[in-house]
Parts: sequence; C-alpha cells; structure tokens
Amino acid sequence: MTSFMNEWRPIFSRFHLIIIKDPELNEEIQIPEGFNIDVYTKSDIDRLVGSSTSVPFSGYSCRYFGFLISKKYVVCVDDDCVPVKDKTGNLLDAVAQHIVNLNTPATPFFFNTLYDPFGKGADFVRGYPFSLRSGVDCALSCGLWLNLADLDAPTQALKPEQRNLRYVDAVLTVPLRTMMPVSGVNIAFNRAVVGPTLFPVLRLAGEGKLRWETVEDIWSGMCAKVICNHLGLGVKTGLPYVWRTERGNATESLKKEWEGVKLMEEIVPFFQSISLPQSATTSEDCVIEMAKQVKEQLGKVDPMFSSAAEAMVEWVKLWKSVGFGQSS
Amino acid sequence: MTSFMNEWRPIFSRFHLIIIKDPELNEEIQIPEGFNIDVYTKSDIDRLVGSSTSVPFSGYSCRYFGFLISKKYVVCVDDDCVPVKDKTGNLLDAVAQHIVNLNTPATPFFFNTLYDPFGKGADFVRGYPFSLRSGVDCALSCGLWLNLADLDAPTQALKPEQRNLRYVDAVLTVPLRTMMPVSGVNIAFNRAVVGPTLFPVLRLAGEGKLRWETVEDIWSGMCAKVICNHLGLGVKTGLPYVWRTERGNATESLKKEWEGVKLMEEIVPFFQSISLPQSATTSEDCVIEMAKQVKEQLGKVDPMFSSAAEAMVEWVKLWKSVGFGQSS
Repeated sequence: MTSFMNEWRPIFSRFHLIIIKDPELNEEIQIPEGFNIDVYTKSDIDRLVGSSTSVPFSGYSCRYFGFLISKKYVVCVDDDCVPVKDKTGNLLDAVAQHIVNLNTPATPFFFNTLYDPFGKGADFVRGYPFSLRSGVDCALSCGLWLNLADLDAPTQALKPEQRNLRYVDAVLTVPLRTMMPVSGVNIAFNRAVVGPTLFPVLRLAGEGKLRWETVEDIWSGMCAKVICNHLGLGVKTGLPYVWRTERGNATESLKKEWEGVKLMEEIVPFFQSISLPQSATTSEDCVIEMAKQVKEQLGKVDPMFSSAAEAMVEWVKLWKSVGFGQSS
Repeated sequence: MTSFMNEWRPIFSRFHLIIIKDPELNEEIQIPEGFNIDVYTKSDIDRLVGSSTSVPFSGYSCRYFGFLISKKYVVCVDDDCVPVKDKTGNLLDAVAQHIVNLNTPATPFFFNTLYDPFGKGADFVRGYPFSLRSGVDCALSCGLWLNLADLDAPTQALKPEQRNLRYVDAVLTVPLRTMMPVSGVNIAFNRAVVGPTLFPVLRLAGEGKLRWETVEDIWSGMCAKVICNHLGLGVKTGLPYVWRTERGNATESLKKEWEGVKLMEEIVPFFQSISLPQSATTSEDCVIEMAKQVKEQLGKVDPMFSSAAEAMVEWVKLWKSVGFGQSS
C-alpha cells in the first residue's frame, strides 16, 4: 500500500480518498502521510450494510463498499498499477483524463472515424449527422493498461512474454448495443447513473484473488453497458492508460479460471439479446428487471447465475438504503 | 499527377496501377517513368460500359471505372494525399497496412478494448468469448488522414486553422450494426465482396468537385456497411494514415454542400433501420434489395434518391457484365 500510494502521490494527493480495508486482512494497513483519507474497516461495513448481506465485500470486492459511500464520480485503479510516464518522465494524470471522459459527451449512435470528436484538435468527420453531434452523457470511462494487459489466464499462460507497449492516443465511445469486456482494473464512473449496476455479484466457485481468476467486473460491466444502451447513456474506452506490473502465476491460475472463460460463452449471448421494458426508467429498475431475466434464462445453466441474480437485487436494496443519497 | 506519383513512388512502383483519365479532362495526363501502368480513357469507358449508362464516370467518379476492372484488392487514395512520414523521414507504407487489414480477421460481434487483436503485441482481453476469436473476413479497410481531416464544408469553414496531428496507432473493427461515415479519400477493399456496393450513385444537384462538396462515398460506404452486417463480414477503420494537403475554399463550398449535410439527417436513420431478407446472399442481391427500399422510403423525400436507386441497379448490371470476372 505504501509504495502504491507514493507512486500515485502527485495525482491522488489532490483528492479525497476512500480506503476500504479488506475485512479478511488481519494486519494494519500502512498509509504514508500527506493524503486526505477516510479509512473504513469491517466494523463500518457491518454497521452500514449489515453482516448478513449476500453481497460480498472481501478481497477485490472491498472496493464496492467504497462505491456505495462515494460522492459523484468514482475512479478506481487496481493496486498493481502505477501511473504511466511520458518520454520526459512526467506522470500522465489518469484521474484528470477519466474526468474529462465523463464530463464530455459520448456519441454512441454513429461512429466517428476520428474517435472522440471532443478531443483536442478532433472533430466530427464529414457525413456525421448534425442532429447527433450534441451526443449524450457519458456514464462510464474504461481505461487501458500498458505493460501487462488484462488478459485471461489461458492467454497469459500461453504468452508469458507478451507486453502491451502500444500507446493508442485515443478515447472512443463504444457504440450503442455493442458489448465489450469491461475490466475493473482502471475505470471511472458517474455513480448516480451506473453505481446501482457495478456490483460484485458473479462469484466463480473456485475463484481466486487475482484479476484473471475473476469475472465479477466483466459481468457487472455488461450489466452497466446494457443499462447505458437502454437509458441512452454513453460508455467510453481508451485513455487513460495505467502501467500494470507483473504478479501472479498464470499457469497456476489456469486451474481456477477456465470456469470463467467457459461461462462467457453463455454470458455474452445473454447480454447481447437482453431487452429491458420501457417501464424501466432508472438504473435501479433496470437491475431488478435484469436480475429477473438472469434467473429465468441463465439460472438453469448454472446455479451461480441464480446467486448472482439474488445478489443483484440485494445490491439495489443496499444502494437505495446506503448509496442513493451520496451523489447529491 | 507527376508530383503525386513521385511522392508515392517507393510504394506504388511495386504494384500494377490502373489509371483512369477523367473523361471531362481535355489535356493529356503526364505520368512519370518507372511505373507499371495501364491508362484507360473515355473511349475505353464507352467501349466497356457504353455511353448511355446512368452511372457517371467523370470527376471524382472516374475511379469507379477502375473498381470495375481491377483484380482482387483495390487501394484508392485521393490525389491531394501524400504518404505519411515517420520521425526519421521514412514513408509509412499505406498499401501494406491496408492489405494487412484486409488479410487478418475482423471481429464485429464483440468489442476488444485493446483494438485489433491481430496487431503486433495485441491480443483479446479477458472476457472475450473464445468462440468469437476466430473472427470473420474483412471486406473494407478505411484509412485516416493527418493534417487536413475529412471534415464537411461547414466545419472546415468554421475552423480553417484546425489540423489533425494526432496519430492514433490503432486499427479497429467497426462493430456489427454500427454505422459510420466512410470516406473515399483513403480506402481499400476486397472487390469480390464490396465491389458491387462501392458506386457513384448519389449525386447532389449542385455538387462540386471537392471532396467536401460530395457525399457519394458516404452513401456507398453506408451501403457497404449494411451489406457487411448482413453477410457477416467486417469493416475496419484506423491505420493507415495519409497526409492530406490543403486545397479548396471551404466558405465557397458552403454554397453547395449544405445540401449533402442536410440529407444525412434522412440517410442515416434509413440505413440504421434497413433490414435485408435472408434470401439476399450475395452483395449483388443486397444492392438490388436496398435499391428497392431506397426508392420506396427515400424516393418521396427527394427525387435524388430515386435516381440513386436506379443507378444502384444499373451498377449491379455493369458489375455482372464487366466487373464480375475480374476477381478470379
């Protein structure tokens, strides 16, 4: 934690930080001086959400408690990531880029070949309808990774030497209806809109504690994208990058993660075909409706999906009781 | 023509070049030595397609005669473009990049956040379904522009100083169903597949001879994208860039081009909602079916669309009689 905080110091020290201590962690967490922080521990979690909830807040998922109690925007970066440096050694400000992404319109209804038309020096290209140029609000900003990309365990095990060194200087809106694998490694979002849908609900039976051993972020990202499609909101991907350092043994993880990889073959067609009723006008409505369809259609494939559906309903309850009032 | 050919010499001199002399051009065209070329003139056009066709082959559109008589792949770059140079002054080979784009699979069914998974050092990210990783054939590769972007006349007139200097080092598949403004400035395609759909059929009444005074490429690009969606083929955008040099007076063009800009408000919703029958299994079938729907739905908006529909049918006839046998 100390080296992570020190690497990010020039960027993070300007903000209020919410630190959630993993309830399963026994030792004290060490945070260097000079930050504006609030630390929440197991007793805070128990007090606010109760200990009987079916939504887990341990391991990777302790961050989700932070989502519940944050203010307007949440920026969330895994602890094996450090800021990217430019050629002169200056840090690229990932937080500033995420906020720009969320604060400028998204354009999901028609693809702009010059990528983000609101970027510096960019614009809409010839043929882009003027009626679509004002765009829509952006709810979710998905950043990328240099060095170690967010690959699945089989790919990582097959190509242990592979590094992502291509810096693609672009932000783009993921088009309407197009589904994507949202990674939780480096994201930011407007919590009033997608907070109700970013939850740790899909748990693999033999799930580990490494990113490539989980699909909880992919699942909630699909829920978020479906809701953005339905509510006419945008999702962007691209900048900012973070530098992801190596850790974990992919070959060891293969013993666990195949399950998640196989489930994607069921999950993706489900989300590609899901349709929400016009009566669902808020993110909370949409999650409840999705949970129903998950239970009906995927529940018979694997009981894990039924548990996910129950946890989705539980999350909406938590959101309404704990999370809802925070955004104002 | 001489300076254009000399700028492109290191790249173009390796290929067989088809040069179509604009039938309206009176002076001789001057082509420097050292190229493997075939020049076609008005008499060749008249001999092969007849002079009575409703498909025009003058001005910008003389290139379309070249599409009819080419071999497997067509690479097409406007004459106000020169190759992009890297930092050491070496030319980037736009033709090689287009061919790579066409020869590697496209992935239109799910978005890969690291862009082209077949690019050097790239891969599919965690969560990408394995069943979708083999992708589909790529039919159309749309390149981009540095310096002067392909903007419409109003945008160009409003921002005369704007230059696109952002080199985005990426190729990506435009997702299934997502529509985009295809620019004819810098494209390449597999003519066996999209040749029947890249045609000069939409003519604005007061159309000029500058790129931003036309929408013929945008229209045919939408037709091509709809057909690729229907036939399960891919369209890519991104690299290669060309360096586009300045010419023309955007403010003067405003007197003509508003018409095209306004038509996009009708064109885009039409193409976004069009659906082709399962019985249309070839590009030629698809064009004929689209022409029917254009006439029925857009013909009442403006007679220009009825003329376009007729020219689409005419183009398919030409393609079957002249173009069809060339790909083998």
